[in-house]
Amino acid sequence: MDEAGWRAGARCVFTLTFDVDAEAAVLAHGRRFAGHAMTMSHQAYGPEVGVPRLLELLADLGVPATFFVPGWVAERRPGLAAAIVEAGHEVAHHSYSHRPPTGMSAAEERADFERALEVFADQGIEIAGHRAALWEATWRTPELIAEHGLSYDSSLMGDDRPYLLTTSGADVVELPVHWSLDDWEQYAFLPDPHVGSVIESPVKVLEMWRAELDAMRHYGCLFNLTNHPFLTGRPGRAVALRTLVEYALECGDVRFDRCRDVAERARADRALPRRSPEPPDVDPAVYPVD
Amino acid sequence: MDEAGWRAGARCVFTLTFDVDAEAAVLAHGRRFAGHAMTMSHQAYGPEVGVPRLLELLADLGVPATFFVPGWVAERRPGLAAAIVEAGHEVAHHSYSHRPPTGMSAAEERADFERALEVFADQGIEIAGHRAALWEATWRTPELIAEHGLSYDSSLMGDDRPYLLTTSGADVVELPVHWSLDDWEQYAFLPDPHVGSVIESPVKVLEMWRAELDAMRHYGCLFNLTNHPFLTGRPGRAVALRTLVEYALECGDVRFDRCRDVAERARADRALPRRSPEPPDVDPAVYPVD
Amino acid sequence: MDEAGWRAGARCVFTLTFDVDAEAAVLAHGRRFAGHAMTMSHQAYGPEVGVPRLLELLADLGVPATFFVPGWVAERRPGLAAAIVEAGHEVAHHSYSHRPPTGMSAAEERADFERALEVFADQGIEIAGHRAALWEATWRTPELIAEHGLSYDSSLMGDDRPYLLTTSGADVVELPVHWSLDDWEQYAFLPDPHVGSVIESPVKVLEMWRAELDAMRHYGCLFNLTNHPFLTGRPGRAVALRTLVEYALECGDVRFDRCRDVAERARADRALPRRSPEPPDVDPAVYPVD
Amino acid sequence: MDEAGWRAGARCVFTLTFDVDAEAAVLAHGRRFAGHAMTMSHQAYGPEVGVPRLLELLADLGVPATFFVPGWVAERRPGLAAAIVEAGHEVAHHSYSHRPPTGMSAAEERADFERALEVFADQGIEIAGHRAALWEATWRTPELIAEHGLSYDSSLMGDDRPYLLTTSGADVVELPVHWSLDDWEQYAFLPDPHVGSVIESPVKVLEMWRAELDAMRHYGCLFNLTNHPFLTGRPGRAVALRTLVEYALECGDVRFDRCRDVAERARADRALPRRSPEPPDVDPAVYPVD
Repeated sequence: MDEAGWRAGARCVFTLTFDVDAEAAVLAHGRRFAGHAMTMSHQAYGPEVGVPRLLELLADLGVPATFFVPGWVAERRPGLAAAIVEAGHEVAHHSYSHRPPTGMSAAEERADFERALEVFADQGIEIAGHRAALWEATWRTPELIAEHGLSYDSSLMGDDRPYLLTTSGADVVELPVHWSLDDWEQYAFLPDPHVGSVIESPVKVLEMWRAELDAMRHYGCLFNLTNHPFLTGRPGRAVALRTLVEYALECGDVRFDRCRDVAERARADRALPRRSPEPPDVDPAVYPVD
Repeated sequence: MDEAGWRAGARCVFTLTFDVDAEAAVLAHGRRFAGHAMTMSHQAYGPEVGVPRLLELLADLGVPATFFVPGWVAERRPGLAAAIVEAGHEVAHHSYSHRPPTGMSAAEERADFERALEVFADQGIEIAGHRAALWEATWRTPELIAEHGLSYDSSLMGDDRPYLLTTSGADVVELPVHWSLDDWEQYAFLPDPHVGSVIESPVKVLEMWRAELDAMRHYGCLFNLTNHPFLTGRPGRAVALRTLVEYALECGDVRFDRCRDVAERARADRALPRRSPEPPDVDPAVYPVD
Repeated sequence: MDEAGWRAGARCVFTLTFDVDAEAAVLAHGRRFAGHAMTMSHQAYGPEVGVPRLLELLADLGVPATFFVPGWVAERRPGLAAAIVEAGHEVAHHSYSHRPPTGMSAAEERADFERALEVFADQGIEIAGHRAALWEATWRTPELIAEHGLSYDSSLMGDDRPYLLTTSGADVVELPVHWSLDDWEQYAFLPDPHVGSVIESPVKVLEMWRAELDAMRHYGCLFNLTNHPFLTGRPGRAVALRTLVEYALECGDVRFDRCRDVAERARADRALPRRSPEPPDVDPAVYPVD
Repeated sequence: MDEAGWRAGARCVFTLTFDVDAEAAVLAHGRRFAGHAMTMSHQAYGPEVGVPRLLELLADLGVPATFFVPGWVAERRPGLAAAIVEAGHEVAHHSYSHRPPTGMSAAEERADFERALEVFADQGIEIAGHRAALWEATWRTPELIAEHGLSYDSSLMGDDRPYLLTTSGADVVELPVHWSLDDWEQYAFLPDPHVGSVIESPVKVLEMWRAELDAMRHYGCLFNLTNHPFLTGRPGRAVALRTLVEYALECGDVRFDRCRDVAERARADRALPRRSPEPPDVDPAVYPVD
């Protein structure tokens, strides 16, 4: 095994990440939802009940995690980001408003990106990486990341191992995500805005993630798990997550890291593939629908 | 353990609640559905077949329950609420029409709220608590509850333990609900109005709720289960519910209560968190879509 | 046990029914789908591959079944209905066009209803019962059934045992159906017209139906199973259905019947509940959306 | 057993097929998606990570497969088709643009069909068969296949064994597909364009396909499995596919073939049913919606 590589000798690296979307994920569908008391309380559960429970669980298990926090959420709850960092975890950039960049102009995306950085700067939180709202990055996103001196992105799905995105400045390390390693598709449900279909049992989710972890240990991948405190902060799901982490710890060949630490090792790893972040060239005659 | 607290010394409190929506849940989508004979019969099954079967099951198991009944349903079936109370259970406010408050003006919400109270007053049914139609409370809802002297609400999701909502009058006790503890997302299916996706097996639902109950025993929560007689009144689901209740009884540390009884203890519990029911402040420049 | 009742002394009656919708179920969404070759072949599989396989399976198991066939399908495949009857099974009325009555005027519903009867009369198929397309009966449907001398309907969901519908003529026996005892919600999938969500495993479906059968044996119900040859005629699902029937046969207290035979016994059973098929009275002030 | 038949003496033939849709499957929804970096990376994973992994897996297992590749994808990644053929597998026609033929005029369908053939001719890839984008063939499709000298189609669902489609030229062998033997309905998820609902566990999918394989061995069918490298190329799903193939190999009565080889034997098999590819005759008075 290559002790110097991004896996630092482990067969699989487990980055446990939490997207603390809170109300922002719903307000991005329409600010009228601010008047929907149940929906707001459903989202507020994340930072208010889920995060403390998960911090306790992480302390108990002794594993580090990365919390992607929208600037708007950090601003609204001043102590939140600091408490996460104090517990030894990483806080990372998750947009300001949780509106998807693919629906923004270049100027809007930049403004939203920079406003989040200002919030974290004001709170003294040092930011090393970024995850786009809804993972809906544009091809401009890696440029913004490089321009502002961040090290990594975690929004794309081009591989199941870290890779490099070339930019006009420094390379950006991509720590790829995937729908199948996200609690949203398994647990999220709201009728309005319409989110989710059936709600899955943590028993199924645990089974699926354990099988994926085993397969990723076989193939030598990054198990980059995305959870949401308003979803996985709930009792039965938190217990299932604990079981998954305990299983990973027992494997003996799985390493837990904050995203920034993996990104740092990945950047130093000469074997990493490099990809250019650019759109495919599309002929309107072939694809007439815009 | 704190015998004086809201859990009265138990590790977990189980409030078994039934929303007797009947035809109202569908008519709220459009009164034209009154002409859809199958759909109406599907909903009528709730009070006509489901409720008697569930009352028998509750008597058999010796556990109390709370039935949230829309005023329109109680009015249309005069003996319904009385039969539930006579069997030792609680009847509570579930709107008049089952139209969601978030789609109403303040005046409409008040009128609907008060009309339900009149129905129950006419029938001599004493009401202590409220649950919004579709759980879609507004920020005005707690005020209405306090103003009319009710003790608790059970529509919000800000915690998994009871908490207090401040109002201009008395505090309202919130007994929080959640999508994952509702039979609707697991079993409901109608093509028009379009409701549900796949229909889950009671085997899966039982497994999921049992796991949640165990996790809530670990964390000391309120297991506030919402079932619908038109769904869980059906044979296979009623049998699964029986199995769940039997399991909870065997645990020895789970207490069954009517909602009003939990609310009363919760109100007296000084350790309860207090939350202000108010919308987040939302800047239209950040969230342009209304 | 009451040997004279509708259950004829059994604890549960199993009516195995097949809706032979074929292309009609899709053409009702738009006749343009006639040009979609895959979709048409998907539907044609029902009568062409599914029905022969299921007839063989039924012969093997020695159980009778009821096939609900749209008139349009019977007309287009002249030998189909006769082959079913010859094998000892019942053919019943399933509309002419498979368009839902709830979307038709009274005159249209009558014309569609009568046109199907003409097709079956021309083919010498004696019809005793009816099932509305998509189960979407109107309140007029029972009148049409009684007027044309049919004995039963199987479209409503007001109970899980047979009941009587009063009409201006003879009572109609209702053999109620339910979404949870239908293979459509478990197996159907088409992108356009959009049908279904996830495709379930026959392993899950078998588990769910076996649990429902056990519960219905406990409660003394009608296990009225609706399957579609284009769905359950496929290999893995046919094998699961065989396993379910074998299980029911082993129970020793489950009786298999054609629908017409259950309807006949139900009509003679004085203990049957009677319901009036009429819409709830709906105030436009309470339900403003039409 | 009939050694000369299409099954060559086996009880079941397993055609393992991969649709290498890549970005084309999404661009067909709108070329604006070219600007959605995450979505493009999600699709690029197929040819860039999934295909190499699957080729390695196939080599390991020693089974042949068929890769259906859109011309646009082959053109954009010049070495792709050649690498597949070099590894001993078949490359087949999967449209040029992955736009569904049912949404095209006759001239558009012909142009798209022929443009793909040109790409493969330019790359020296010999094409024997065709699969329509989204399986959405028209009734014209078999004519195009015959006219261009291809041997088989694999888009329709009229049977679970090969059958012949008559055309004005040579018969076309149909190797039928089905939704239940496709990884798309189990694993695909994208919010925009909206694809999928819940994401299933490979544990469930493996269980379902194993049961289908057993049933197809019983009935003597073609187990024609459709997988997508951007879905099943992911670690946990690739491992599940390996388990399925290993199970099939252990059965001893399942034969693996490229589609072209099955088509060749099927064409020589006199027992094959023959079907005319033509639309049902539809009366606008019966089906008024177009």
